[in-house]
Amino acid sequence: MTWKQIAAEKKSHQLDSVPKEWLSADLPPSEALSVIDFPGESHALSTLDVEITESSVASLLSNLASSKWSAVQVTTSFYKRAIVAQELVSFFLIGKADSPNFTDFRALDEHLQKTGQVVGALHGLPISLKDQISIKGIESTMGYVSWVGQFAEKNSVLVDILESLGAVPFVKTNICQTLMWTETFNHVFGRTTNPYNRSLTSGGSSGGEGALVALKGSPLGVGSDIGGSVRIPAGFCGVYGLRPSYNRIPYAGCVNSLEGEDSILSVLGPLSNTLDGIKTFFKAVLSKEPWQMDPMVIRKRWSEEEYRLIDHGNGEKLCFAIMWDNGVVVPHPPVRRGLEITKKALLAAGHQVIDWKPYKHAEIWKNFNRSRVSAPAIPNFENAIWNAASAEDFKVSTAPTGEPVIASMGLLQDELLSRLSPIGISAFELWKLHKIKRDLRQEYLKHWEETVSQTGTGRPVDAIISPMAPYTAPPHGMNKTAQYTMWCNLLDYPAMIIPVTKVDQALDVKQPRQQFYNVDDRENYERYDPATHENAPVSIQIVGRTMEEEAVIAMSEIVDKALRGAKSKL
Amino acid sequence: MTWKQIAAEKKSHQLDSVPKEWLSADLPPSEALSVIDFPGESHALSTLDVEITESSVASLLSNLASSKWSAVQVTTSFYKRAIVAQELVSFFLIGKADSPNFTDFRALDEHLQKTGQVVGALHGLPISLKDQISIKGIESTMGYVSWVGQFAEKNSVLVDILESLGAVPFVKTNICQTLMWTETFNHVFGRTTNPYNRSLTSGGSSGGEGALVALKGSPLGVGSDIGGSVRIPAGFCGVYGLRPSYNRIPYAGCVNSLEGEDSILSVLGPLSNTLDGIKTFFKAVLSKEPWQMDPMVIRKRWSEEEYRLIDHGNGEKLCFAIMWDNGVVVPHPPVRRGLEITKKALLAAGHQVIDWKPYKHAEIWKNFNRSRVSAPAIPNFENAIWNAASAEDFKVSTAPTGEPVIASMGLLQDELLSRLSPIGISAFELWKLHKIKRDLRQEYLKHWEETVSQTGTGRPVDAIISPMAPYTAPPHGMNKTAQYTMWCNLLDYPAMIIPVTKVDQALDVKQPRQQFYNVDDRENYERYDPATHENAPVSIQIVGRTMEEEAVIAMSEIVDKALRGAKSKL
Repeated sequence: MTWKQIAAEKKSHQLDSVPKEWLSADLPPSEALSVIDFPGESHALSTLDVEITESSVASLLSNLASSKWSAVQVTTSFYKRAIVAQELVSFFLIGKADSPNFTDFRALDEHLQKTGQVVGALHGLPISLKDQISIKGIESTMGYVSWVGQFAEKNSVLVDILESLGAVPFVKTNICQTLMWTETFNHVFGRTTNPYNRSLTSGGSSGGEGALVALKGSPLGVGSDIGGSVRIPAGFCGVYGLRPSYNRIPYAGCVNSLEGEDSILSVLGPLSNTLDGIKTFFKAVLSKEPWQMDPMVIRKRWSEEEYRLIDHGNGEKLCFAIMWDNGVVVPHPPVRRGLEITKKALLAAGHQVIDWKPYKHAEIWKNFNRSRVSAPAIPNFENAIWNAASAEDFKVSTAPTGEPVIASMGLLQDELLSRLSPIGISAFELWKLHKIKRDLRQEYLKHWEETVSQTGTGRPVDAIISPMAPYTAPPHGMNKTAQYTMWCNLLDYPAMIIPVTKVDQALDVKQPRQQFYNVDDRENYERYDPATHENAPVSIQIVGRTMEEEAVIAMSEIVDKALRGAKSKL
Repeated sequence: MTWKQIAAEKKSHQLDSVPKEWLSADLPPSEALSVIDFPGESHALSTLDVEITESSVASLLSNLASSKWSAVQVTTSFYKRAIVAQELVSFFLIGKADSPNFTDFRALDEHLQKTGQVVGALHGLPISLKDQISIKGIESTMGYVSWVGQFAEKNSVLVDILESLGAVPFVKTNICQTLMWTETFNHVFGRTTNPYNRSLTSGGSSGGEGALVALKGSPLGVGSDIGGSVRIPAGFCGVYGLRPSYNRIPYAGCVNSLEGEDSILSVLGPLSNTLDGIKTFFKAVLSKEPWQMDPMVIRKRWSEEEYRLIDHGNGEKLCFAIMWDNGVVVPHPPVRRGLEITKKALLAAGHQVIDWKPYKHAEIWKNFNRSRVSAPAIPNFENAIWNAASAEDFKVSTAPTGEPVIASMGLLQDELLSRLSPIGISAFELWKLHKIKRDLRQEYLKHWEETVSQTGTGRPVDAIISPMAPYTAPPHGMNKTAQYTMWCNLLDYPAMIIPVTKVDQALDVKQPRQQFYNVDDRENYERYDPATHENAPVSIQIVGRTMEEEAVIAMSEIVDKALRGAKSKL
């Protein structure tokens, strides 16, 4: 069979095992752009299904614990809604869906009935997982045709932990081929679109998660982030998403791209419709001491003290710094408006807000990935950590079937394929890049510490508030740069995505601009048209210090509360 | 000038600035092997000098805090004793020694007098530092002739922290050229010998620290460890030494070899004559929140709970496992006797002791460094993490003067120079090695967890007790393998060296042996002659889980107490 035949066969089986009565008879027409409200009104869902799927994680857990709702009921409701989501945006459906007998979940109900006790902190909570997070017996295609038919022999560590907490990993979600793009498209399952506007990308590489969680087909999803792959889909799809520091959430047992690329580590992180979902996931996973199961995980328990912001004046008067732009590419008007709304809300809530002066963001980006912009100024243009051997890595996974590496997203592939030597760089060159990276981290830390003179709190800036991209979700194939997320990966800063508003053509008009940082900045400006981005979510990113997840969650709650407070006053 | 002239000139200036009255008139003859007791009897030291330099860290700190001894007095006493040590074993003397005006230290006394408060937790404590740990204005030669004259422009982060704690970084100590050997010899400052038997090596690469601390020329030293470089000198010289996990003690601002080799990280660790010195250092450095100064340091405070062994049944009945040999090279008789003494002492103290089954130690060693033994079984013989680009790295530092890379220690250099391609391996090959490394860590963790079925405590083995080398200090040039320390670096296990006894020709007789694991094992057996190792310290290594320094310190105290208890009953 050719790779096209393998892919076509796989895709044609995709919905075969789904109960036919759960398919929607009343799907919106394909030209309907926003489908975000459709599932709540779909005839495929009962009133109870809608009530359950529109509950917060906290309320789901409490109703499950009190036996108001059974685990089987909750999982069935989310599974039904996920099927609707699949029909709308093709988030990709696999997993228990292939054999939906729900045996495992019934055991949860029996346990609760018999003992009166929940199995664990996530009792009965359905959780969706990015394709690469292995579930025993379930396929991980990773978007590669040659991986079709690779069934996991055992659970990843995270799945073992989630199950021991009583959670229900129930579907797997779509990614991009190679995992190294910021959109979601591959030759096996095709493209995942944005539920707020299907002509726009859902982001990537965890775009299946972003789209599914936004449509409330899952209360909590887990993606991975090596350059923004949790945050970009979260931001583009208007949900919350956390990129934790390296090695806090166990990654062992997942399949991956660029295996052994240890310079900038991919991390797993949660997406949810509420911050309580993010916190609940993070705290619950750490409670299982994952360092006893994955040697890479840092032995650091959830710190209630750090969550109470002992390192940030107990959260009483925080000083945030807004990075309006990164000195490389200026964000589009709706992104700026999102920051302005946030600033106003925080000031109204009694916090302080100053400007963040970006520091060497072009160099950071360049160390990571080759970039047109930074090239003239920096020698060894060809060398960057991701490019060190990625062409060789991609070839290993595409060669068996002859499937081509998709070259359509601009970010990495176009240049990589045409310009990179297929044998990559030497280990010695890679060591030099590590040294540059370490110096950048050291300098950025110093830069941050020195803000103590500007805050008036006696502390350096508590958190940076940054765009998560220089635009809201763009049309498919146009997500050109991940530089607004990548810096956190290189510096290893935990970062939370918070949705703020949506693109409004009346408010987000294009302003004349004459001066540009560089050619990318000019092109980004020229591409902007508010009509194109109609209805796209506008999000911000709360950035903290390395290993400070507890504080980032707490500060995000403060920002979120300020934003909701401001909204309720409108 | 040729490299020989530069080296000769530097060396001839080495003792020039030392006060002549502090030199010893009564040095032992060069054929005297043990000089360990000489400084205490030297006419160069007063009775007070001897009393001070033979005090524990705890008692120094308490007498400094009470003003019984001034910081100037304490530093002067150690400085005088360090000069004697230099004359005996050439530990290498540089630093404040070049301009011994002690101004900085006087300020400590004035502060205490004026405020009644100590400056910090290490008030007035002299600390010796391995050459690579930068002190502003002081040279770091790193054992390379081409580095002579490179004066540090600023302190390393650790030195800033130590000074803020009131400590007195007072001398720098000798290393090996390249930092990547386990003996201490370079073209600039020559060789550091073992104070217990000067025909034997002091170990390396922190051999200057091992020798100086053993001679009590410093109460606390700081070395670095990427394959055993703290532990080997500590073990060979009979002092305590800790290899902490990656990124707990700040490394930023130090100079280094193999910069950017981030696969297996070098770490800084303390050496001292008492465990209280180790603990005091560790706790004090963490109290300054080093993650605010070095972005690599993990945000994890000293945990009093973990020190009280909450993860180990509160330390009431521990289960240790002894690794008698690693399945690759069987240790010499004195090493085995050290383990037997420890076992007996622990059983007498009410703890449990079982055997540790080594797991893939040849593969671990091979992933790190090319090895004859493991080569036949494993493909890509040439590839190993250290060899990935080390030849190129060494060349950068030796090329400017034409100084040859020293090729005399067998461990790395002999093979490296003759067999390694000067361009190393590709980044893609390095990624593959990372994957092997990660799998080895995952498997070793599982192996450890599975011991829960053998301990009877309900927990897996609490700590492994291992040799730190398959021999006690060998003659110069004969330290052939670091495999008994390297595994902890690859697996990132914290490990403490504890001295147990000394080689005794009557007890440590050579036993006949017919079967060998491999050719290295046979050669190691054949080389043993108890007379050669006369008086050499015998040490053990207490190995814990990643990031569990607090528990390793606490368990080491338990082992040490058991050993001292056993000794006092003899």
